[in-house]
Amino acid sequence: MMTAVDQALQAVDSGLDVSLERLFAFLRIPSISTDPAHKAACHDAAAWAASQLAALGLTAQVHETAGHPVVVGRTDTGAARRVLFYGHYDVQPVDPLNLWQTPPFEPRFGETADGRRTIVARGAADDKGQVLTFLEALRAMKATSGRLPVDVTVMLEGEEECGSPSLPAFLAPHAGELKADIALVCDTGMWDPATPSITTSLRGIVHTELTIHGANRDLHSGLYGGAAANPVHILSRIIADVHDAEGRVTIPGFYDDVREPPAEVRARWAELGLTADGFLGPVGLARSVGENARMLIEQIQSRPTFEVNGMYGGYTGAGSKTIIPSRATAKISFRLVADQDPARIRDAFVAFVAARVPPDCTFEVSKGEGSRAFLVPPDSPDLVKASAALEAEWGVKPVTIGSGGSIPIVGQFKALLGLDTLLIGFGLDDDRVHAPNEKYDLTSFHKGTRSWVRILDALA
Amino acid sequence: MMTAVDQALQAVDSGLDVSLERLFAFLRIPSISTDPAHKAACHDAAAWAASQLAALGLTAQVHETAGHPVVVGRTDTGAARRVLFYGHYDVQPVDPLNLWQTPPFEPRFGETADGRRTIVARGAADDKGQVLTFLEALRAMKATSGRLPVDVTVMLEGEEECGSPSLPAFLAPHAGELKADIALVCDTGMWDPATPSITTSLRGIVHTELTIHGANRDLHSGLYGGAAANPVHILSRIIADVHDAEGRVTIPGFYDDVREPPAEVRARWAELGLTADGFLGPVGLARSVGENARMLIEQIQSRPTFEVNGMYGGYTGAGSKTIIPSRATAKISFRLVADQDPARIRDAFVAFVAARVPPDCTFEVSKGEGSRAFLVPPDSPDLVKASAALEAEWGVKPVTIGSGGSIPIVGQFKALLGLDTLLIGFGLDDDRVHAPNEKYDLTSFHKGTRSWVRILDALA
Repeated sequence: MMTAVDQALQAVDSGLDVSLERLFAFLRIPSISTDPAHKAACHDAAAWAASQLAALGLTAQVHETAGHPVVVGRTDTGAARRVLFYGHYDVQPVDPLNLWQTPPFEPRFGETADGRRTIVARGAADDKGQVLTFLEALRAMKATSGRLPVDVTVMLEGEEECGSPSLPAFLAPHAGELKADIALVCDTGMWDPATPSITTSLRGIVHTELTIHGANRDLHSGLYGGAAANPVHILSRIIADVHDAEGRVTIPGFYDDVREPPAEVRARWAELGLTADGFLGPVGLARSVGENARMLIEQIQSRPTFEVNGMYGGYTGAGSKTIIPSRATAKISFRLVADQDPARIRDAFVAFVAARVPPDCTFEVSKGEGSRAFLVPPDSPDLVKASAALEAEWGVKPVTIGSGGSIPIVGQFKALLGLDTLLIGFGLDDDRVHAPNEKYDLTSFHKGTRSWVRILDALA
Repeated sequence: MMTAVDQALQAVDSGLDVSLERLFAFLRIPSISTDPAHKAACHDAAAWAASQLAALGLTAQVHETAGHPVVVGRTDTGAARRVLFYGHYDVQPVDPLNLWQTPPFEPRFGETADGRRTIVARGAADDKGQVLTFLEALRAMKATSGRLPVDVTVMLEGEEECGSPSLPAFLAPHAGELKADIALVCDTGMWDPATPSITTSLRGIVHTELTIHGANRDLHSGLYGGAAANPVHILSRIIADVHDAEGRVTIPGFYDDVREPPAEVRARWAELGLTADGFLGPVGLARSVGENARMLIEQIQSRPTFEVNGMYGGYTGAGSKTIIPSRATAKISFRLVADQDPARIRDAFVAFVAARVPPDCTFEVSKGEGSRAFLVPPDSPDLVKASAALEAEWGVKPVTIGSGGSIPIVGQFKALLGLDTLLIGFGLDDDRVHAPNEKYDLTSFHKGTRSWVRILDALA
């Protein structure tokens, strides 16, 4: 006789085509949260998600916020345990649009060079595809058993890609409603296409924008060139000064709250044997520019960074324009680790900039949204159960890894709701998240959905 | 009895309103040469200019080129001498458009803070207003005497603001038609609103565009940050490296062909007493960032420069996007002096960049359009005559000055046509050329027109 889990897994397999149709419908909604022009699309995505939750028998509500809505759905069957699943329905901007092979919001099937079938669209991996692995698992369990092994609260937000500014204010008054035994987040990746993973550390982040102002207008570079300060030059010198020749960040105090991982963790990392060729080769690079004294895996997981995400100043159109720009701007993000505090890092950067801007020029540093880094103890009981469930699905023992990315909500779950979080996702390094031609492997979607069936059963 | 000159001057005065109407019509044509979207407007401006020349009795022709047309008109009365007047009908781009108080191609009258009346529009000073001072002078002389004291060839091009790429190929086959005794160029400025000037030196220029390529796509700054090369960082380091702490350019060989001006020239410059406060104060700056060891006037006239005119890379839209950009670009121009060769300077820059790009990244430097610097001997007889004519009009002895700007045509007149050039213009430092709210003083337009009447008479 088939177990309830086997029946649900069979329903996942037989319903895969319909599940993909639902995913494609979700992917067609251009819910770019950072761009005010897409506000309506974000509402559409929230409404679509709420309708899916309702169809699964959850009480679903769309909560308005100062930004985009938060969707919350829940079951109340009196099960022994409750999980809180968190995901986001918003996506990154799509520029440069001309590098997309097909329009970003017209999902299609594709194939990788080594023959893996994929779903191509903005949000395919980050995070719509991953969110639907969970919802489709619920659907299969509900369809076969008429019930779920645990009670479920699903919370989907619409501002993850711009730092979740409205979420803290939402969590506090809804803390009661969101109470659970454990939080589940499906916004992370696998070690490789065959090896499932549980992410036990995340870097924090602080975003900010620096603008240097020089003359009160653009100047003719012939008439003023050689005398007038050029904000692009000043900004370039500041950016150049941030790193020393060994790849370390030179901002005073930057490393004060960084801790060294335990020796056994470093030893396990060393065993994973991550190489520059293996990690950077696929994106066309050959060597790491990070801190020379560190292993590559440390550079991307346990060490903090400074990165310019975008920069502009002066004339950027076709042809040439012989001006000295009146200002220049850099969009900057820091990735934080251990006990680094976003506000303190931003303040240190402001002081670093202030020391480098000539007295007759001015600068602004935007307020800066941020979150701290996060670490789960690798021996937590739910982690051990989820790990066994993943091994049953994939036939390979999962690895516990760190992620260099940032998921601010995880720290807030701990701080505001007292909740631990399991980070389990099925993304791959070649998913092109935040880039043109984003994809999600069909296997990630299919086996990801099956994995959640097993995990929810294991957590019951 | 009034002389012919007096009659023409009176005609300039009484016809000023009609002259301004013609100028406004010229300014309404959005002839931005660097932007392919304005190609038709450039043709319109050429046709308008040709119709004006024809109305003055010149044989006028619009010559097509690989780029925008060259307009040539001429009289052939058998006068003892012929002048070749050069100007351009194209204008700079208008961005940032939001900083214009009124639309750039809707000319209007304005007033400076100290009460000078102005004409405000893109091209008001550079170069449509200046070009019309000459044409309106011809009109007044023709209207009052029925003839001009010299034969005149007028050549107006449409690509000055993007480096005049089509002009050399035009000049060679038309050398016969363009033969003259002296060239006149009205694209320069006055020392101050009361002091007319003849420009006896110009800096050369070379434009180029540098792009750094890193990964083969934009990367997630969390997943790759700390390891992957960031082209914005690389480009910033290159730009930062170009100047040393004393404001000197560090590119090897950059100063090889720079010569020192004679001691008496430097002494005359010192007497002009140009200060950072006086020169940079009006644009909101207080101190020069140029070579510490040089007088300010040298920095902007006789010393070469490196300037980033525009830079961009990564995400530049609203909000934030956490990527490591796959590339970054800087639009660069060098101002050249003395014997510096544009091609050699570009080559030196390419070597400088090559030494600073990591081996797994690549770069491109665009071909680079350029022109050499230019110098007129201050004792040339035509210069002495023009100087006396200017003094008669303004009541102040003109100063001979250098300009930090570049007018490539001047070198080509010498090289291809064997012609010397007098650079006489009526622009002012506060004209905002190449910037929002460009203006031309009404006095510059009116007394500039009167000045040409006197100069043409003097050159006869």
